[in-house]
Amino acid sequence: MNHNTETPVTVIGLGLMGQALAGAFLKAGHPTIVWNRTSSKADHLVAQGARLAPTIGDALKAGSLTIICVTDYPALYELLGANEVELEGTMLINLTSGSSSQAREAARWAEQRGTRYLDGAIMAIPSAIGTADAVILHSGPQADFAAHESTLGALGTVTYLGADPGLASLYDVAGLAMMWSILNAWLQGTAMLRTAGVDAATYAPFARQIATVVAEWLPGYAEQIDSGSFPAEISALETDTRAMEHLIEESEAVGVNTELPKLLKTMADRAIAAGHGKEQYPVLIEEFGKLRKD
Amino acid sequence: MNHNTETPVTVIGLGLMGQALAGAFLKAGHPTIVWNRTSSKADHLVAQGARLAPTIGDALKAGSLTIICVTDYPALYELLGANEVELEGTMLINLTSGSSSQAREAARWAEQRGTRYLDGAIMAIPSAIGTADAVILHSGPQADFAAHESTLGALGTVTYLGADPGLASLYDVAGLAMMWSILNAWLQGTAMLRTAGVDAATYAPFARQIATVVAEWLPGYAEQIDSGSFPAEISALETDTRAMEHLIEESEAVGVNTELPKLLKTMADRAIAAGHGKEQYPVLIEEFGKLRKD
Ligand SMILES: NC(=O)c1ccc[n+]([C@@H]2O[C@H](COP(=O)([O-])OP(=O)(O)OC[C@H]3O[C@@H](n4cnc5c(N)ncnc54)[C@H](OP(=O)(O)O)[C@@H]3O)[C@@H](O)[C@H]2O)c1
Ligand SMILES: NC(=O)c1ccc[n+]([C@@H]2O[C@H](COP(=O)([O-])OP(=O)(O)OC[C@H]3O[C@@H](n4cnc5c(N)ncnc54)[C@H](OP(=O)(O)O)[C@@H]3O)[C@@H](O)[C@H]2O)c1
Repeated sequence: MNHNTETPVTVIGLGLMGQALAGAFLKAGHPTIVWNRTSSKADHLVAQGARLAPTIGDALKAGSLTIICVTDYPALYELLGANEVELEGTMLINLTSGSSSQAREAARWAEQRGTRYLDGAIMAIPSAIGTADAVILHSGPQADFAAHESTLGALGTVTYLGADPGLASLYDVAGLAMMWSILNAWLQGTAMLRTAGVDAATYAPFARQIATVVAEWLPGYAEQIDSGSFPAEISALETDTRAMEHLIEESEAVGVNTELPKLLKTMADRAIAAGHGKEQYPVLIEEFGKLRKD
Repeated sequence: MNHNTETPVTVIGLGLMGQALAGAFLKAGHPTIVWNRTSSKADHLVAQGARLAPTIGDALKAGSLTIICVTDYPALYELLGANEVELEGTMLINLTSGSSSQAREAARWAEQRGTRYLDGAIMAIPSAIGTADAVILHSGPQADFAAHESTLGALGTVTYLGADPGLASLYDVAGLAMMWSILNAWLQGTAMLRTAGVDAATYAPFARQIATVVAEWLPGYAEQIDSGSFPAEISALETDTRAMEHLIEESEAVGVNTELPKLLKTMADRAIAAGHGKEQYPVLIEEFGKLRKD
């Protein structure tokens, strides 16, 4: 590891997130070089000790590694694809949000230009950057991550996922799907309980407890998926769908939204129609793995 | 509390669940009286020391409390509504699954017959009964629960929710909605990651971690709901929907099901259309609280 707080770091893109990233490097003591299309966004950072590079090319040369965090991939190509920008020999860590295929394409693009490339995804808001709450996912060559892990650690909790540069964005959206799904299930339950005069604060600890317990099951259920065998050790899908029907009826009876309950049952019913009624819940992976055109 | 292991307990209904309940009371040392429409289902329990009552009326008289656990409420009324059954003065704990309105109706029905009534919901499978993993929810008069809590403790982790007898079934289905929602979000993520060659076991700990963290947020978010004020302290709904769009696009691009991602965005888009784009996620409670006719 080449970490010490003397390692100079370049940050390109000083939007809300880029400013937070540069600020965290400064706070950790790194010489921090910054550049942004709209240069005035560097003012606050310069006042804290950052150096504003005159051109993006100068910025890239000045740091041992360069973080880029702009709106989207087209903005990244617009900036880095300019003729005068020399990428050869640089280490680029791209924290711009995008899809897994955009990340893989950018990795190939960088390789053609002799640039080392890691793709990252930030699972945090700007104000959390620099704290352990900021989870930042990385994918690409492991050696490059290992070489810079310690420097990147100034930004938050940094994680390495694997060599495929598309992994960071896949894990990112998968994690967000989990987040919103938990919030929606909790809102569904809260809406139901409110009809009985139970306030949200009374119900929340129960929902938290269930979510925490169910989260613990996932590694065990994953074994069923990886082995492709789904014995109904806990409950058969047919039994589950009867309780899903209860959930739909109860939602209707108390007058709350039924779309989430109905989607749960739709997915399970399809697996039963495909002959999996006597198997266990994770057999639904087959339904989730299918893109339906409708 | 009148608990001691001498307290005689009656169990009516000896299906898979009723047998497990009676078995747990026997194991805890309680004199256990059982009755079932099909009496042969008592054989195994009688061999373990249970006493088979000759009639359901005798069974009700023999215990200090009676647990009933049959298929559904019509079965309960068929059994307990028979002319020769004397309910006056009994303590009935109904662990039959049903809706909150069925529970409230049964409580009124019992009251008219001079019967003390608690409604319960079993969040467990028969093999878990008698262990701490079996969560059994109760609602109805608090004094009745307090008087029998310790005896009921032989069945698992017993919880009291409130005086409204409908609460146990409402919490039950709300908890199940949370369970299936977490499993589905995990399956969505697993399906996406599998397209990149990541196996379910590799992804599961990440999903578990996200779920555990998000579960911790619920009590804080509940305060926004109870106060009816949703300042975007962490993220505004508008920002969230951009990431939801990423999730949908990524799901389509890798060829997995998009119904869950689309439902997430549909709910959020409606809240934005209702003018809540600059507020925080829990403002969706208004959408979840509405029954839509379509
Ligand atoms: N903010 C968050 O909570 C959050 C959380 C996780 C991930 N992210 C991701 O982080 C990235 C940046 O987000 P942000 O919040 O910092 O956005 P932002 O405040 O809107 O900043 C956008 C940045 O991109 C630059 N940019 C956009 N188009 C450009 C172009 N064509 N040429 C040159 N520069 C261009 C902007 O330069 P100018 O200043 O010159 O306009 C600015 O530096 C996004 O991919 C976002 O999804 C953000
Ligand atoms: N099994 C589980 O995993 C589980 C989990 C949570 C909650 N529960 C709930 O527990 C309750 C019982 O489930 P179970 O698994 O024990 O079901 P089960 O094995 O099918 O047993 C049904 C019981 O109800 C009796 N019954 C049904 N209709 C009747 C009628 N018309 N008159 C008299 N008795 C009647 C049956 O008597 P006979 O033996 O004479 O048919 C039997 O004792 C259900 O409400 C279920 O939703 C079950």
